[in-house]
Amino acid sequence: MAYWLQCIECSRKYEKRDIVYTCPHCNGLFEVKYDLDEVSKIIAGHEEFKRRNQGIWSYREILPIEKETNPISLQEGGTPLYHCKKLGNELGIKKLYVKHEGMNPSGSFKDRGISVGVTKAIALNFDAVACASTGNTSASLAMYSAYAGIKCFVLLPEGAVAIGKVSQAMIHGAEIIKIKGNFDFALELVKSLTTDPEKGIYLLNSVNPFRLEGQKTIGFEIFEQLGEVPDNIVVPTGNAGNISAIWKGIKEFKYLGFIEKIPRMISIQSKGASPIVRAIKNNYEKIQPILAPETIATAIRIGNPVNAPKALRAIKESNGIALAVYDEEIIQAQKDLARLEGIGVEPASAASIAGVKNLFKNGQIDKDEKTVCIATGHVLKDPDEIVAVCKEPMKLFEDEESLRAFVEKRLSSF
Amino acid sequence: MAYWLQCIECSRKYEKRDIVYTCPHCNGLFEVKYDLDEVSKIIAGHEEFKRRNQGIWSYREILPIEKETNPISLQEGGTPLYHCKKLGNELGIKKLYVKHEGMNPSGSFKDRGISVGVTKAIALNFDAVACASTGNTSASLAMYSAYAGIKCFVLLPEGAVAIGKVSQAMIHGAEIIKIKGNFDFALELVKSLTTDPEKGIYLLNSVNPFRLEGQKTIGFEIFEQLGEVPDNIVVPTGNAGNISAIWKGIKEFKYLGFIEKIPRMISIQSKGASPIVRAIKNNYEKIQPILAPETIATAIRIGNPVNAPKALRAIKESNGIALAVYDEEIIQAQKDLARLEGIGVEPASAASIAGVKNLFKNGQIDKDEKTVCIATGHVLKDPDEIVAVCKEPMKLFEDEESLRAFVEKRLSSF
Repeated sequence: MAYWLQCIECSRKYEKRDIVYTCPHCNGLFEVKYDLDEVSKIIAGHEEFKRRNQGIWSYREILPIEKETNPISLQEGGTPLYHCKKLGNELGIKKLYVKHEGMNPSGSFKDRGISVGVTKAIALNFDAVACASTGNTSASLAMYSAYAGIKCFVLLPEGAVAIGKVSQAMIHGAEIIKIKGNFDFALELVKSLTTDPEKGIYLLNSVNPFRLEGQKTIGFEIFEQLGEVPDNIVVPTGNAGNISAIWKGIKEFKYLGFIEKIPRMISIQSKGASPIVRAIKNNYEKIQPILAPETIATAIRIGNPVNAPKALRAIKESNGIALAVYDEEIIQAQKDLARLEGIGVEPASAASIAGVKNLFKNGQIDKDEKTVCIATGHVLKDPDEIVAVCKEPMKLFEDEESLRAFVEKRLSSF
Repeated sequence: MAYWLQCIECSRKYEKRDIVYTCPHCNGLFEVKYDLDEVSKIIAGHEEFKRRNQGIWSYREILPIEKETNPISLQEGGTPLYHCKKLGNELGIKKLYVKHEGMNPSGSFKDRGISVGVTKAIALNFDAVACASTGNTSASLAMYSAYAGIKCFVLLPEGAVAIGKVSQAMIHGAEIIKIKGNFDFALELVKSLTTDPEKGIYLLNSVNPFRLEGQKTIGFEIFEQLGEVPDNIVVPTGNAGNISAIWKGIKEFKYLGFIEKIPRMISIQSKGASPIVRAIKNNYEKIQPILAPETIATAIRIGNPVNAPKALRAIKESNGIALAVYDEEIIQAQKDLARLEGIGVEPASAASIAGVKNLFKNGQIDKDEKTVCIATGHVLKDPDEIVAVCKEPMKLFEDEESLRAFVEKRLSSF
C-alpha cells in the first residue's frame, strides 16, 4: 500500500520513513496521503470494513502501517454510539447521538491515535516516545508504551491536569515531567526534545501526522453505527487534532465512494480557550493564540492549537460552525447527560452538548437534523471537578430510625 | 420462558413476581431457576448466542426478563479478554488471560448485574432503587437508574469509598447517604429500608438474585472469546456475588450442552478481609464474619459477604481454591499488569493476579493451564491509591536546558 507525507501548506512530499513532524521547508503541518485508487482495488467495498468489527484496525488499508507490522493494540475503538432521546427531547432535537470515546481502554479517544502512533514508533525502531499533554494523551501514551515495552516521557503543565489522568501515567510507569507553564509551553519543550531523531525519542503529540490517522476512525464508526452520514458532527476542540482527523477520514471515505453526503464539522471550545472560534468569527487566515487559556474543561485548555490550520479548513470545507460555550453551560450539560442518559463524561466532552443546545437556540441546528456529539473522555478522568460542581450535601447517619425518616421524606418529595 | 426463585437452603419456590430478596421461611439465599429444557428448544444452540454479539443481552433466554420487556442497557458487557504474554512469562504461566471488566460503562463489572436489576425494578413498577456499596455498585446503580428515570439511594460506609466511585454517584444524581460504620452495617441498614415493598424501594444489592443473573454472563463471554473453557477462573472476592454468579452460569451452559468441561473457580481475597478463605481452609460449613475488615482494595473490603453460602459451594463443587494475598502483593500485581501489559485496574482487580502468582509458586496452578483472571474495575476508580503507591518523584522544570540534561541522563540509564 502506497502512502507518503505531504505538507498542507507547500505541498512538498516526504517519504513515509522520513522522521519529520512538520515540514522542514515551511514548517507547515503534514498530512498522510494514500493512493486511494490502489486502496479501492485492495478492499471489496465498504462492506468489507463493516464485517471486520475490530475497532480501529478494521480500517488498516487506510492506516499508515505496513500490513506485515503487528499493531500495538489494546482493543481501542468500537465505542458505543448512544441515541440520547431524553436529552434530545429536552433540547428540542430528536436525533441527538453521543459517541462515547470515554469507553476506550485509557478512558479517552486518544487511544485510537496512540495505538497507531506507538505502532509507528516501534516500526521506526524508536525505543522511547514523548508528548506534552493536558492529561489524556499522557495517560494513553503511558499505557501503550508500557504494553509495547518502550520508554515514555510525558510533559504536563503543573497543576493543570486532572488527577485521574496523572495517576494513569504513574501506574503505567511513564517518566512524568512537570512543566512550570501551560500546555502550549510544554508542547514547545517536547518538540525541541524530539527534533533530533538520533536521540531516539519519537514525538507523539497530535502534530504527529500518523497519530491523527488513528483518530479519523471515529467518523468511520459513526457512519456504520448510524447506518448513514449524520448532518452534524460536533467535536470539543483543544489542540484540534480530532476534528481535523475526522474530517480527513470523511474525505477519504467520500473519495472511495463509501459515503455520498458529508456532515458539517462543528467545533466547540470553551469561552476561555477559543482561538479557533475567534478565527472563524473574524475570518482570520490564522488563529491568534490565547496566552492564558482558562476553563474547567482541562482537556481543551489550550491557547495555541497546533492543528488549527487543519481544523479551520475542516470547518470551512464542510460548511461547518465554530462556537464557544461558558464553563457553566459545560457543567450543566455534563449533569444533563449523566442524569438523563446515564452517560458519564469529563467536562470537555460535555462542551459538545452545551454547544448543540446553543446552536439549536440560534437556529443553526434544525430539530430534524441528525447530530452526533463526540464525548472525548470518561467522567472518571476528573473526579475532583465532579466533587466541586455537585454541591448536593451528603448526610451522615448512625442509626436506622433517623435514616428511615430521611428516606421517607425524600421519597414523598418526588 | 419459565423461571422462578428457589431458596438454596430449603428449596422452597417462589414466583418470579414475588418481591422477596431472601427466603421468608429460612432466610436462605435465592437462586433464579429456569426450565433449561425449554430454553434448549427456544435457541438454536450455542452458535446462536455467539452470533449476536450484543453484550449481556445476547443471552436473554437465560436472563430473568420477559422477552417483551425493553432492557435498560447502556451497552454493558462485551469487555476485552487480553492474553497477557509478558506478565505470564514473568510468572511462569504461558496462558494467562485478563478479562477487563473495567471496560464496562461505569468502569466495573457491576454494570452487568445492574442492567438486569434495574430492568427488573422497572418491570416490577418500582420508582426507586437502593443499595449499600463499597463504591462500584453505587456508581453503576446511579448511572442505570438515571437512565431509567427512577430514584436512587446509595448507602456508603463513611471514608471507605474511592473518590472516583463517589463522584460517579454524584454526577448521576443519586441520593448519597453516608453511614457511620463499615459496608456490612450499611448493608444491614439498606435491607431494612427495603423490607416492605409497599414503600416503593427495590433492593439492588448482590443479595438480589436477579442482579446476579447479569453477572453470570462474564463466564459466557470468556468461553466464546477463548474458544474453549479455561482451566481456572480467578475472581477477586468481596461480597461474593460475582464468583457465585459465574459458577451458576457455567452449570447452566454445561446443562445446555454448550460446554463440556468445567473450570476451577478460584476465589482471591485480601488477608485483611478473607472470611471465605478461612472457611475453606478450616472446612467450616459457614463463614465466620470478620468484624473490622481492612485492605487497600476497598472494593473487596467486606467482612461478612452476603453471598458466602453460594461462593463456598462454587469453590467446592468446582474443586476450586480460595487464597488470601497481602496488600503489598496486590499493589505489586497492579503495577505489573499496568507496566507489562498496559492494563490499568483498581487494586481489587489486581488481587486475582497476585493470587495466581502465589498459586503457581505453591504448585496449585500448573504452567500449562489456561487461567483467566477477572479484573473487576478500571484504574480510574481509585486515583488516590495510585498516587499513594507510586512514589516515583515528579521533577519540575522551568527551562529547556535543565530538562534536556535530565532526559538525556534518564535515556542513558536504560
